[in-house]
Amino acid sequence: MQKLGVAILGATGAVGQRFIQLLENHPWFYVAEVIGSSRSAGQPYGEITNWVLDGNVPDSVSHLTVKPLDGNFDSPLIFSALPKEAAETREIELAAAGHIVCTNASANRMVDDFPLLLPEVNHDHIKLIDVQREKRGWKTGAVIANSNCTAMPVVMALAPLRQFGITKIIVVSAQAISGAGYPGVASLDILDNMIPYVSGDEQKLETETLRMLGSYQNEQISWMDAKLSASCNRVPVIDGHLVNVSVELRANPRLNEIIDIWTNFRASAEVANLPSAPEHPLYYMPQIDRPQSRRDRNAGKGMSTSIGRLRECPILGYKFAALSHNTIRGAAGCSILNAELIASSGYIAAFTREKTLSAG
Amino acid sequence: MQKLGVAILGATGAVGQRFIQLLENHPWFYVAEVIGSSRSAGQPYGEITNWVLDGNVPDSVSHLTVKPLDGNFDSPLIFSALPKEAAETREIELAAAGHIVCTNASANRMVDDFPLLLPEVNHDHIKLIDVQREKRGWKTGAVIANSNCTAMPVVMALAPLRQFGITKIIVVSAQAISGAGYPGVASLDILDNMIPYVSGDEQKLETETLRMLGSYQNEQISWMDAKLSASCNRVPVIDGHLVNVSVELRANPRLNEIIDIWTNFRASAEVANLPSAPEHPLYYMPQIDRPQSRRDRNAGKGMSTSIGRLRECPILGYKFAALSHNTIRGAAGCSILNAELIASSGYIAAFTREKTLSAG
Amino acid sequence: MQKLGVAILGATGAVGQRFIQLLENHPWFYVAEVIGSSRSAGQPYGEITNWVLDGNVPDSVSHLTVKPLDGNFDSPLIFSALPKEAAETREIELAAAGHIVCTNASANRMVDDFPLLLPEVNHDHIKLIDVQREKRGWKTGAVIANSNCTAMPVVMALAPLRQFGITKIIVVSAQAISGAGYPGVASLDILDNMIPYVSGDEQKLETETLRMLGSYQNEQISWMDAKLSASCNRVPVIDGHLVNVSVELRANPRLNEIIDIWTNFRASAEVANLPSAPEHPLYYMPQIDRPQSRRDRNAGKGMSTSIGRLRECPILGYKFAALSHNTIRGAAGCSILNAELIASSGYIAAFTREKTLSAG
Amino acid sequence: MQKLGVAILGATGAVGQRFIQLLENHPWFYVAEVIGSSRSAGQPYGEITNWVLDGNVPDSVSHLTVKPLDGNFDSPLIFSALPKEAAETREIELAAAGHIVCTNASANRMVDDFPLLLPEVNHDHIKLIDVQREKRGWKTGAVIANSNCTAMPVVMALAPLRQFGITKIIVVSAQAISGAGYPGVASLDILDNMIPYVSGDEQKLETETLRMLGSYQNEQISWMDAKLSASCNRVPVIDGHLVNVSVELRANPRLNEIIDIWTNFRASAEVANLPSAPEHPLYYMPQIDRPQSRRDRNAGKGMSTSIGRLRECPILGYKFAALSHNTIRGAAGCSILNAELIASSGYIAAFTREKTLSAG
Repeated sequence: MQKLGVAILGATGAVGQRFIQLLENHPWFYVAEVIGSSRSAGQPYGEITNWVLDGNVPDSVSHLTVKPLDGNFDSPLIFSALPKEAAETREIELAAAGHIVCTNASANRMVDDFPLLLPEVNHDHIKLIDVQREKRGWKTGAVIANSNCTAMPVVMALAPLRQFGITKIIVVSAQAISGAGYPGVASLDILDNMIPYVSGDEQKLETETLRMLGSYQNEQISWMDAKLSASCNRVPVIDGHLVNVSVELRANPRLNEIIDIWTNFRASAEVANLPSAPEHPLYYMPQIDRPQSRRDRNAGKGMSTSIGRLRECPILGYKFAALSHNTIRGAAGCSILNAELIASSGYIAAFTREKTLSAG
Repeated sequence: MQKLGVAILGATGAVGQRFIQLLENHPWFYVAEVIGSSRSAGQPYGEITNWVLDGNVPDSVSHLTVKPLDGNFDSPLIFSALPKEAAETREIELAAAGHIVCTNASANRMVDDFPLLLPEVNHDHIKLIDVQREKRGWKTGAVIANSNCTAMPVVMALAPLRQFGITKIIVVSAQAISGAGYPGVASLDILDNMIPYVSGDEQKLETETLRMLGSYQNEQISWMDAKLSASCNRVPVIDGHLVNVSVELRANPRLNEIIDIWTNFRASAEVANLPSAPEHPLYYMPQIDRPQSRRDRNAGKGMSTSIGRLRECPILGYKFAALSHNTIRGAAGCSILNAELIASSGYIAAFTREKTLSAG
Repeated sequence: MQKLGVAILGATGAVGQRFIQLLENHPWFYVAEVIGSSRSAGQPYGEITNWVLDGNVPDSVSHLTVKPLDGNFDSPLIFSALPKEAAETREIELAAAGHIVCTNASANRMVDDFPLLLPEVNHDHIKLIDVQREKRGWKTGAVIANSNCTAMPVVMALAPLRQFGITKIIVVSAQAISGAGYPGVASLDILDNMIPYVSGDEQKLETETLRMLGSYQNEQISWMDAKLSASCNRVPVIDGHLVNVSVELRANPRLNEIIDIWTNFRASAEVANLPSAPEHPLYYMPQIDRPQSRRDRNAGKGMSTSIGRLRECPILGYKFAALSHNTIRGAAGCSILNAELIASSGYIAAFTREKTLSAG
Repeated sequence: MQKLGVAILGATGAVGQRFIQLLENHPWFYVAEVIGSSRSAGQPYGEITNWVLDGNVPDSVSHLTVKPLDGNFDSPLIFSALPKEAAETREIELAAAGHIVCTNASANRMVDDFPLLLPEVNHDHIKLIDVQREKRGWKTGAVIANSNCTAMPVVMALAPLRQFGITKIIVVSAQAISGAGYPGVASLDILDNMIPYVSGDEQKLETETLRMLGSYQNEQISWMDAKLSASCNRVPVIDGHLVNVSVELRANPRLNEIIDIWTNFRASAEVANLPSAPEHPLYYMPQIDRPQSRRDRNAGKGMSTSIGRLRECPILGYKFAALSHNTIRGAAGCSILNAELIASSGYIAAFTREKTLSAG
């Protein structure tokens, strides 16, 4: 089978690097184009990039010449790790030019006809691709976003509880430094320290969460009808966003009932067989002191969300801790899973269904 | 003026060392006796102690011979940094033998007739000393406790809001490693990690907070009538417990009104002049990203509580972050402040009121 | 092919856990017996073990019942992660009883007729097995040691330079906390700190290095004739021991010559095909700021040593930095590689050469 | 007594902040002018500065308006915390304009007629002020530098050993993140990591050390005649540069002799009485695992150097560990001590000798 070449916008940054790392040996896609700033354009990726992940730049990408953002790209599928400002109009231009743009940027997440896609949770939101194409006159292009990295463990853990009627959610996050990109958080700011503030994240958490947990109805997303209060903190942890969540439910399930639901939670069939889909989207950990950021962030190759400590909350009824790897599940990994769902759903003309089957 | 010699129980441990450090150059007290385990008894303190604080053992204490816990002590005033199990009966025996025992141990905190004293917040709880002496037939002895270190920033920040009618409190803590003593938290457990569990602390926070914020009535403490939900976490920070708090009030004060109250909060006169009382029990920090554990833990020589980020909570009405130094304000420092209040209130026979005045 | 069941002594400790993790899915061996302290004996491994590595206890080992150290074991091959005191006589008893004991303990490393084996460097030292069997009257048993974890990057980097005549070596180490086991280093001792001392390691480094770099002659090891000065430090890094080395050589090779030798260094054929042998025992990194502890410790699945910054030393002639993963290459991984070499060399009766070939 | 107003160049940066913090309540000097980049000029210091030290901007400086670097300044004494490029010509211009410039920048450290001053070690180098004034035609101005922060513990420890004839020195450093300023080291680069490279520091260490340990002869500095090899590393420590040093001496003193010399080392009388001079420039710590970065960096209010672990080195004869606080003793604190010596030596016209006496 011939793999589909893809392009990475913002390829030299921390999230761009994670895209490249995760696409190394991907069964359907390979990195064909790396796009960077005007400063790096024209130079070999391996030379211009300050690789901040472990190890080195994968050989297959190291020799690629970095292309400028304002050029034309060959790849039908584009992953965007652009900063917000750069993303806003360029992603839409590229979709208008026929590209599928799977973006990790926050700029276009809340646009009404762009899906904020999380395959295990709201894969039917993908239908917004038809809506945006219809509305905007796009034939093959589309913009699909994934959520803020801190919303990820909240949404993953709460998705299967929607059946009980979620009404109130209080989230206090402890976010890893990699969430701020590179150079991101200065070491003088975070060693032996905790910062009770992450710019913009509380507002994103309070909106994106409800949109992702909402339902697709009449060609739009109906947000989940609940109140959410978020307090975001930065901690001296490299990867892994941990949240303490209190939640109020209309129904009154027993604790064990919820634990069983989490333990047995599986993605729908069209999602479960995708290459990047973890076998267990959720793990419930019985140990009293888990999940822990470092020890559990790589569960399911960084794509599983770990939950623990479900207990009664005297105020809202239930409370628990949850953890997702912020740059895998919460960023590049989710974007790739989104692209796999889009490809297998037939939205990428150059990618045939037959490919999916043979590769599965 | 002649200083009062005091004894330290559990003197070789981490909190015991903090007592010794804070009492160095204290205007009223000096360390006359250090009490340790049977293993260390009989040896010079400076030789047997693995000093875990910065610098070295103060010279004035280094040469003292460690005494065994089961001996007799000369000092009328005893500070206890004992572990819970050792503290439970021994503290009461020593009070029965005529000593004032200011304890940092959790064992006797919730005994009905023992004050859980926090001078700026509930200095009238000191009257329980009369109650316990009457009830137990003690002439000069007493047991006075200070709270769990994590309850400290919560109680300090909420105390001046009692006037608005506190009904619900949700607390998520991020606790420093020094809260676990020495050797305490293994470095393999906490470097690049966060642990969403601290043994026993959630239960302590949910009870001690309400007792401390309660009122002295009819020779007993009437707990504050509110619900509290606590989630306790350990973070890779050396000192300083930071809490994210959401709170519901019966009244509906404006945010600025609360900030003004915090800013202008002062201890009552009999407390404000004590040697260890900070000028500002509370600081409200206007910066959007404060208080921070490392940068703000030493405010007021570790005795002030720093508060920041007061904003609306969509669920409970108000939310904010608060920070106290856990081994100073939250442990040894508070215990010493308690002892100063007890001394200046005339409860220690050997310590005359005249001393207080001349030393003030 | 039927795998060979192996036993792990000290299975519940940190190094024991690393053995179990690395043997998961090993092509030749599987963990058949886990041996622990009398406290844990009789209980299921998964329940009694405080798993300190990432993730959880492998399912295949979790249900095994922990056996006591003084019992009899079925496995012909035993890996020892015992503490020094427990190892000294018990390892020899087990070898006398017919077991091959591959030990990570320091107790028996310097025994004259026990090989201190590092397959890429001194695989002919394995002949000491014949020597010890002859001398001690052992038929099938043997004791084979691997070195102190800090000696590893030094020995790996210097081995191919022996041809130039090594005369003087100055090593300053920066050692990860995992080198001290669990609970090991207290977090209060190492967060925001560096400790210029690691008990016993300087002496080990100054002797084991020279023995490993020595040659097998006349049924004994002739140590390399060089002087070594070691200064050992503990740093707040989880895994990975980094050394700064200055070295004096009799010959006067150019820097590029040495870099080429490192880059082209390969194990001999009988070692290179072993399952745990890395393709590149050494990597020379051209970047000016590498190797780095976190980013390079997992090179070659933790079995490669990374070297960088070769430059002239005004005192000894050459200096460089080198890094090995201390609990993989420097402990359990090396011990497993040693066992593979022993098995493929025909020293384990129950393990046939045919197995090796078919599994290769 | 009227204090002398001083100016701080680069006042908003990390070292500039340390100057301001250390000058708070200084008996001779007060901060009268703060000079920043064109971006911050014209704005109140307290508003424009991202204060990275603990606590907050001192009140006395907070309201000062930041002045641009290209303006004129009233203060006869100027402390420079400028980056290298900005420092090179501007410092000389200001000296030519009549100011005494005590600089922490590296730009002008090795200029032949500028003293690289370390009062306890080479206070007679101050005579270069007369040389430079003579040579350059300056009446009241001068440039005086302090050394690279990593050279500090090396020079302080070796200074009293010059009597034994120092011939060879090998230094391996472990440098704190604050040495790189702010934002400086990215947290992603240093958490759970060590970097075996600090740009430029090895070269500085290998030259500045020898110049500082040199002697003033015939209106110039004769460098100490020794070889020095430096390897510089960055570690996840906030403050405190720790060095492992091996040293060869012509004489053959016993270890105890050296320890006695270190223990009894005192500054000469004209230095010992300066306000910032520590009582003990050197501490020799008898504990086997000291000095440690966090626990010992604040010895002597950050102005003392702590030494430990003196033992034989099989290669060079002697080895030990030493530690200095890099932003106090190794930067701003040393610069202030230099200024005190200059002031008390009569080089600042506006500062009378009588002031010194009355303030001492």
